[in-house]
Amino acid sequence: MTKKKIGRQTVKLLNPPSILATYSIVGPKEGEGPLSNYFHHILQDDLYGEDSWEKAESKMLKEAVKSAVMEARLTLEDIDYLFAGDLLNQLMSSTFAARDLQIPYFGLFGACSTMAQALSLAAMMIDGGYGHHIIATTSSHFSSAERQFRFPLELGNQRPLTTQWTVTGAGAAVIAQRGKGPYITHITTGKVLDYGIIDANNMGAAMAPAAVDTIRAHFEDIGNSPDEYDLIITGDLGKIGRNIAGDLLRKEGINVEKKLKDCGVEIFDHDKQDTHAGGSGCGCSAVVFSGYLYKMLKEKRFNKILLVSTGALLSPTSIQQGESIPSIAHAVTIEGGLDG
Amino acid sequence: MTKKKIGRQTVKLLNPPSILATYSIVGPKEGEGPLSNYFHHILQDDLYGEDSWEKAESKMLKEAVKSAVMEARLTLEDIDYLFAGDLLNQLMSSTFAARDLQIPYFGLFGACSTMAQALSLAAMMIDGGYGHHIIATTSSHFSSAERQFRFPLELGNQRPLTTQWTVTGAGAAVIAQRGKGPYITHITTGKVLDYGIIDANNMGAAMAPAAVDTIRAHFEDIGNSPDEYDLIITGDLGKIGRNIAGDLLRKEGINVEKKLKDCGVEIFDHDKQDTHAGGSGCGCSAVVFSGYLYKMLKEKRFNKILLVSTGALLSPTSIQQGESIPSIAHAVTIEGGLDG
Repeated sequence: MTKKKIGRQTVKLLNPPSILATYSIVGPKEGEGPLSNYFHHILQDDLYGEDSWEKAESKMLKEAVKSAVMEARLTLEDIDYLFAGDLLNQLMSSTFAARDLQIPYFGLFGACSTMAQALSLAAMMIDGGYGHHIIATTSSHFSSAERQFRFPLELGNQRPLTTQWTVTGAGAAVIAQRGKGPYITHITTGKVLDYGIIDANNMGAAMAPAAVDTIRAHFEDIGNSPDEYDLIITGDLGKIGRNIAGDLLRKEGINVEKKLKDCGVEIFDHDKQDTHAGGSGCGCSAVVFSGYLYKMLKEKRFNKILLVSTGALLSPTSIQQGESIPSIAHAVTIEGGLDG
Repeated sequence: MTKKKIGRQTVKLLNPPSILATYSIVGPKEGEGPLSNYFHHILQDDLYGEDSWEKAESKMLKEAVKSAVMEARLTLEDIDYLFAGDLLNQLMSSTFAARDLQIPYFGLFGACSTMAQALSLAAMMIDGGYGHHIIATTSSHFSSAERQFRFPLELGNQRPLTTQWTVTGAGAAVIAQRGKGPYITHITTGKVLDYGIIDANNMGAAMAPAAVDTIRAHFEDIGNSPDEYDLIITGDLGKIGRNIAGDLLRKEGINVEKKLKDCGVEIFDHDKQDTHAGGSGCGCSAVVFSGYLYKMLKEKRFNKILLVSTGALLSPTSIQQGESIPSIAHAVTIEGGLDG
């Protein structure tokens, strides 16, 4: 019964679950970026009719789930489990959404790796026969993240050029036993790595080794090569982390150069949008996947991708206590469907 | 492939995983309580040689995992996944332990329901064939929780009598495909409930309806009665929440009266130890399970129990923003083993 486990970190799904539908909601800034046309819903106001950014973030997550379920032509009662997580302390965004959704709920924390973590667990649970339909979802919000992790926005602090910009957005995917794809076929689960980076304004550098370790483990476990993939896309290393990851992979002898992209680089126009090193946050790989990547897979413009969401697992407390930044990356192989 | 799912919230495991070994570490106060003899390791100093309570908590979790793995006569390399969570923001305790343990890691947040959440996911992953050995673990620490959720201890604030006392402790269990039991046979996953309690000093009242809802769902889904169980033990409702849960269950027509106990009530001597409404925290049901309950199952003094860890999913931010306290409870059926 462990023919499913190949190598130390990878699972091959014998009944690859289908991603029935996705939904992405983004803030106004993300809606002005290069992936604008791929998102399902662009907010005009990042408060989304609520009285706090945290509540707005929770509403995005809830609406993304409800809309993904509608896109899949299901009802909330058809969903067996909700795998959700976010950056807010005690998962405030996921918790309050789960309260309204009334789906059996597992809360996850993997910082910005959460989308791949949720997809991994949802896919294994479907493959294993524990449900017909499972939701994987995450959110983040620039304004709720800034005040929790850095400074109150009212201070107008300057941000170093290595800083990333937390994406305002939520993405949700409905994973199902049956469907026309795209399919989740392999899962590589990351270990926590820490290369001693202590600068919380340079998370790309902290996360790059974790991304490289998981990508290396993936190819080692599976025994195939990056040539089989159309795209290897990391979660949110940003420009600096993306370049470090490229260098490290080259040193490891893994040649992914032209196929290696990053959700945090793709989501913003860095010259025009002043987002410094690029996008970050749980919502980053969630909306790039639920919007852009899912549609590209559906349209057969990609046939096989590796989504590698990356998380910097720091807390303000751990930083204040002199700790460096531990990071993790989870990888999910997604292959094209049967129809267009 | 969904013969495993029975009813809306419950899964029946077809290859019930065995709990190979457990380990519990507790603080000095827990070591003076009525369950003292059942814990594996009692700390003399709740700083555990570290320079902060958060680091001490993380060390407890790490040592509990390493010791449980040793008790199971395995090495860390034999462990396929680590399911871990705690109360600290960004799971600081689990994250830094995972950094040292180097096991593929899934971070969970379910507040004080985390032990049952981790056992649920670990058991389904083993049953489904995704690994040979998986760790489920959580921790909490009175002093790190107080300063994060309430007030700095240095202020010497008075605590209302409805308040619970966060357990200092960590518990870990090794879940395996093969073994002599006890076995995890059923899993009932909770939904987030909120009955409008806004008093963060009365979490037992907030969590009681969630415990009742999950217990009701468990018996509805399985179609059996509480008579089959030797014990139904909630996570950490404390004295007040335990009594509310008893009343609510009676109103629902579920007669569990004499079998209903609570980890938060059992762990302290409330008359002598001045812990007000009882114990709480992720570590509470973790150490009561890993210490007391596991040993009682091994010794056949219990043959079948339902562990119902309960979590109050509040955050200081949600309370400040006027929100009430959402809660959740997850239930795991554990049945006795083949030997003594």
